[in-house]
Amino acid sequence: MIIDCHGHYTTAPPQLAAFREAQLARLDEPGRAAPAMAPVTDDALRESVVNHQLKVLRERGGDLMLFSPKASGMEHHVTDPETARAWAEASNDLVHRVSLLFPEHFAAVCQLPQTPNGPLDGVIAELRRCVGELGFVGCNLNPDPSGGHWTSPPLTDPYWFPLYEVMEDLGVPAMVHVSSSCNPAFHTLGAHYLNADTSVFMQLVQADLFGRFPGLRFVVPHGGGAVPYHWGRYRGLAMRMGRPDPAEHLRNNVFFDTCVYHQPGVDLLTQVVDAGNILFASEMLGAVRGVDPATGIAWDDTKGYVDGAGLTAEQLAMVYETNARRVYPRLDALLTAQGR
Amino acid sequence: MIIDCHGHYTTAPPQLAAFREAQLARLDEPGRAAPAMAPVTDDALRESVVNHQLKVLRERGGDLMLFSPKASGMEHHVTDPETARAWAEASNDLVHRVSLLFPEHFAAVCQLPQTPNGPLDGVIAELRRCVGELGFVGCNLNPDPSGGHWTSPPLTDPYWFPLYEVMEDLGVPAMVHVSSSCNPAFHTLGAHYLNADTSVFMQLVQADLFGRFPGLRFVVPHGGGAVPYHWGRYRGLAMRMGRPDPAEHLRNNVFFDTCVYHQPGVDLLTQVVDAGNILFASEMLGAVRGVDPATGIAWDDTKGYVDGAGLTAEQLAMVYETNARRVYPRLDALLTAQGR
Repeated sequence: MIIDCHGHYTTAPPQLAAFREAQLARLDEPGRAAPAMAPVTDDALRESVVNHQLKVLRERGGDLMLFSPKASGMEHHVTDPETARAWAEASNDLVHRVSLLFPEHFAAVCQLPQTPNGPLDGVIAELRRCVGELGFVGCNLNPDPSGGHWTSPPLTDPYWFPLYEVMEDLGVPAMVHVSSSCNPAFHTLGAHYLNADTSVFMQLVQADLFGRFPGLRFVVPHGGGAVPYHWGRYRGLAMRMGRPDPAEHLRNNVFFDTCVYHQPGVDLLTQVVDAGNILFASEMLGAVRGVDPATGIAWDDTKGYVDGAGLTAEQLAMVYETNARRVYPRLDALLTAQGR
Repeated sequence: MIIDCHGHYTTAPPQLAAFREAQLARLDEPGRAAPAMAPVTDDALRESVVNHQLKVLRERGGDLMLFSPKASGMEHHVTDPETARAWAEASNDLVHRVSLLFPEHFAAVCQLPQTPNGPLDGVIAELRRCVGELGFVGCNLNPDPSGGHWTSPPLTDPYWFPLYEVMEDLGVPAMVHVSSSCNPAFHTLGAHYLNADTSVFMQLVQADLFGRFPGLRFVVPHGGGAVPYHWGRYRGLAMRMGRPDPAEHLRNNVFFDTCVYHQPGVDLLTQVVDAGNILFASEMLGAVRGVDPATGIAWDDTKGYVDGAGLTAEQLAMVYETNARRVYPRLDALLTAQGR
């Protein structure tokens, strides 16, 4: 089977955006009561995905998508913890309901109610609620809740450890994914996302986080940012710094997705990164929509690139399925319970 | 001939570092007189390069290097303009003297006395001094003088236009190069440099800077950061934003160097970027020193990768020589005067 480990609910019914607007408006009027989201019917949820993510997934030969709230909408730069909690809860609840409506095609991954350098207790509580009560299989972790100002400590800092303890305990990985950029120097989709992937990978090269948390697993999206293209740079830097070779050091803990939108990029990724550390993904409907006029192929139809990258059948099985089941053991349990 | 467009004076005599220390110490004691740099003899300058950059350049078959002060040492985050002026002047003067001692092998590129969001008049004055009086052929422009806090406007903002007018007027390009990171989230060599390359490229995709400054040219170092690896992403984003195809839009104004330290990376670069937009470079002795134990080849021996990338003889001539002479017309004039 083919598992797409990186999809976002970018087509949620308009009640979600209206709720967010009401939330943000209220922050300017502290006396106002907290808004509630208008009800969304199951039919509206079905309609929001059947002709979008689900249709495209099936047309391209995919079976199941790891589905999380829209990344650019997480907006962790909003500093009020209670607003962040209610926003993550509403966003996650919709994703949860989609996964219940289409249990064969969507497994849920949660947004965390992070705030810039805020306390992590609310983050941990929402993770426990989603995984423990609702059957989520993973989470998205934002290394820069400030939205492009990078005011948080590196992911190797003890600030994050309480969260990691719970992730290990629950057996869920995190996709390292920033949200919208509030910094005009960084375009959200064309710079901030890729910079975050690159920066976090280097943070992990510098320190020995996984010696302390051997069961902690991160998926670095967008093909690992700049990392595979500069694989020699990272190997050379690690050696110069007296650090172990990244391929060995991070083998059991760090994985790249295949959200790289042209054949030469996916060729490079599969050439330099071990197939055991690559998870198939498209991030559709996401950053880059439409068709390359030069090839007639949709930019984010990454399955075509992966199929064309010259991997063996065994490697393809790892990239398409077995790596994801290993990195997300709760997904494996769900699928096993379905007889898949 | 083979021109390496990206080398830094990372081996300057110790008087330069001592001067910097004295400069920084003085900032804590405002009453103290400005320090002067201890004299450096021509012999000391010769010795500082003959067994380092010059030796490696010649051993690897290179003829000439565009030589600028150490990038991580520019330290534009220090906010005092007079300190920045004296520091750039001292650094540039040494590079200038090296270029006079070895005119066949080094052409000078200057550091600019930038400060975070500071006025550009001192920057322009130093550019005019270096190019007009000392024969420099280009400059390094830092898009983030804050050193990892990214407080400056994008390079497409009018803030920068007075500098661009002078660059056009003088006929010199800029290599877009940040300095040390002061942000623990960004490792200087493993994240900040690459993020800057990626971010600036996207800034240039978003706006029409070269419609206003058709003669302005930027070299994006380190193989363009994450850009060539994500070439499909940039083409797709540009199309979605109603912007022209980056390859067309930036053809006459934006160039990538070849500082990518493994064969698959250089293969990708030369596959997706037109040979007319690639300039040979190694950045030695720079970020990544030493030999890959898997191949026995020095990481930054990029000539081997470029030779192995399957380019035609005509394309190789462009990458090794003619593109650099076109992008740096003052270099071309220098070489022509030398009969080369």
